[in-house]
Amino acid sequence: MEKGKGMNIIVLGGGRVGTAVALDLERDGEYGVTVVDQSEKILEKLHEHHGIATLQVHLDDPRKVKRVVRRCDLVIGALPGSMGFATLQAVVAEGKNIVDSSFCPEDPFLLDSVAKEAKVTAVVDCGVAPGLSNMILGHHDAMMARVDRFECAVGGLPVERMPPWEYKASFSPADVIEVCTRPARFVEDGTHTTRPALSDAELIEFPSIGRLEAFNTDGLRTLLTTMSVPNMKEKTLRYPGHIQKMALLRDSGFFDSEPVKVGSAMVVPRELTSKLLFAHWELSHEDRDFTAMRVDVEGVEEAGQEPVRYRYELLDQYDEATNTTSMARTTGYTCSAVTRLIGNGTYEHHGISPPEFIGREAKCFESVMTDLAARGIVFDKTKSLVKGDEE
Amino acid sequence: MEKGKGMNIIVLGGGRVGTAVALDLERDGEYGVTVVDQSEKILEKLHEHHGIATLQVHLDDPRKVKRVVRRCDLVIGALPGSMGFATLQAVVAEGKNIVDSSFCPEDPFLLDSVAKEAKVTAVVDCGVAPGLSNMILGHHDAMMARVDRFECAVGGLPVERMPPWEYKASFSPADVIEVCTRPARFVEDGTHTTRPALSDAELIEFPSIGRLEAFNTDGLRTLLTTMSVPNMKEKTLRYPGHIQKMALLRDSGFFDSEPVKVGSAMVVPRELTSKLLFAHWELSHEDRDFTAMRVDVEGVEEAGQEPVRYRYELLDQYDEATNTTSMARTTGYTCSAVTRLIGNGTYEHHGISPPEFIGREAKCFESVMTDLAARGIVFDKTKSLVKGDEE
Repeated sequence: MEKGKGMNIIVLGGGRVGTAVALDLERDGEYGVTVVDQSEKILEKLHEHHGIATLQVHLDDPRKVKRVVRRCDLVIGALPGSMGFATLQAVVAEGKNIVDSSFCPEDPFLLDSVAKEAKVTAVVDCGVAPGLSNMILGHHDAMMARVDRFECAVGGLPVERMPPWEYKASFSPADVIEVCTRPARFVEDGTHTTRPALSDAELIEFPSIGRLEAFNTDGLRTLLTTMSVPNMKEKTLRYPGHIQKMALLRDSGFFDSEPVKVGSAMVVPRELTSKLLFAHWELSHEDRDFTAMRVDVEGVEEAGQEPVRYRYELLDQYDEATNTTSMARTTGYTCSAVTRLIGNGTYEHHGISPPEFIGREAKCFESVMTDLAARGIVFDKTKSLVKGDEE
Repeated sequence: MEKGKGMNIIVLGGGRVGTAVALDLERDGEYGVTVVDQSEKILEKLHEHHGIATLQVHLDDPRKVKRVVRRCDLVIGALPGSMGFATLQAVVAEGKNIVDSSFCPEDPFLLDSVAKEAKVTAVVDCGVAPGLSNMILGHHDAMMARVDRFECAVGGLPVERMPPWEYKASFSPADVIEVCTRPARFVEDGTHTTRPALSDAELIEFPSIGRLEAFNTDGLRTLLTTMSVPNMKEKTLRYPGHIQKMALLRDSGFFDSEPVKVGSAMVVPRELTSKLLFAHWELSHEDRDFTAMRVDVEGVEEAGQEPVRYRYELLDQYDEATNTTSMARTTGYTCSAVTRLIGNGTYEHHGISPPEFIGREAKCFESVMTDLAARGIVFDKTKSLVKGDEE
């Protein structure tokens, strides 16, 4: 397989993330980048405005995926979550390395042995959270004598707070409903536990943004099985009031998946609700977004020392110069940073790699952080004694 | 037609209001009271527990209504609003006096000439608001040299604030949605105007209840045409937060009446919403309710005097002794008070009578207030100079 300069990269999906990855890698001037999408409009824009090579294919069939990736050296997966697993499986079966940001609902480790046999490096969940948050934990888990606690709060939000929702979905709106209904799994005092979605509300202050509302969500994903940290939780950030709105709909039955009799018809409430809310939540080309994240890792650096807390805070904005959403920047540039690591041979791990595996290799972690910083995505990192700043 | 003692009264509808009127009039020991309903269960209870005469008829056809009322002297209308107008028309056509609390959406004055010809006294909108609020305005309009302003805020609410809605519908839940969508018509500086439903939110303090949220609703009804007061508005009272919840659903499209395509089916959002919310709003036999009302009438008592404001405040509670909801008490006992006025010849007005017509006759107004007070429904009436207490 070709590596480094001259590497042929296929980007599956020309949406916001796929476009951001493609343009970022193309800018390196080292790779041959081709974007595959079913939309002629998207491909035309990529080709005419940015000189990117394109291929029009509807990737609804794994056989088409296999055919498309056959002659490339590395694949970027930037398709919707619902298509993610089948695509990942097809790419691995073709023996191609992949960096994936589809966040598919299936457990990617189901493909671990196949990927190992095929000697494929398959990085999954490669975004912000999951993604960078996993890398940060992986990094500290490798560096510190003991990690006691991991907590991540993250949100992608519109700059303009348009009523009634003050929210735009930078990912699939169906997942926005799922986030607010699926019980959140996390780890507390060494025990795996579950709490209702939308529970444990708290306000977190972000400079220049103000207070955001954080609530439990089921976002730890691979960390639940790859890490043995006794306290881990993930929260989602929204403008204050979001929990109440979503809870009202949930508790009134609007998210129910069981059909309800309305007149003579049977209606699934969640399907109508999705239809109505997507019209409000759709991120349009006029919308500006930002990404807010706070990751805390607590532990002991060397046996016998006092526990310390590392806090990583990120606030990333829409890029007016390139019309790139913050969601696409933070997810896409993480993907391209990881792609470079694989391309230049710095990261190689046959099998499935969630981002915490990359984070635990110091050189890889530094490289990703450096690449992001060069694109204006800079974490504010602070360290304090755990006892010193307890609230 | 028989009047006073021995008068035969037919109560159409054995729901909460119909039952309260029937029991109250029966207690007088002067009338023959018969309740008509389609439910055997309701009628059995009325007969066995209270010795009330009953008649089982499904009143879905005006011809049945005519047959049922043929031999009575006066009719109490206590059917749902959707059946109200047709029933009123049938009763008037049979030449029977009626006291109606169906609050039908149609304009009752369409039947005015027919009622006049038939020499029928037909009192409509005979409840709390519309009802007592109209009487108060009618009373002051007759007594004072000039009325400048009328404002009514009213709400029927559950004692227990059960999340997420903190609301129970003591009337048709479909009307609860209607109240929050239909633009509110009122009068401002002598001009008829319209404001969106749920607008002009304010908090009103009720002793022993706390703050309630008031918002514009389309409740002036007959007052819009019968009174020439330059400022009139009506507001609905709910526990704080109700506006935001209803506005969220309304603004998201959940109250829309236009069908939406969901998969291959067409769904009317309001129909599904009604179905889901009614399950939460249904007033059960365990629920306790209260009625809160504040009516302000401002004007000049005699030419040349300072403007004064009369404020009527009412807080009525569920009656544990008789298991009667406050909604049924306040509506039903107003109906029975008016029935007595017609029965003993104190009130006679051929044609349609909204309650403001009754209120303007001092003797009638006093009689209604006395009857209500004897049943524990007591207004706290205060008078102040308008200038003295401007907020």
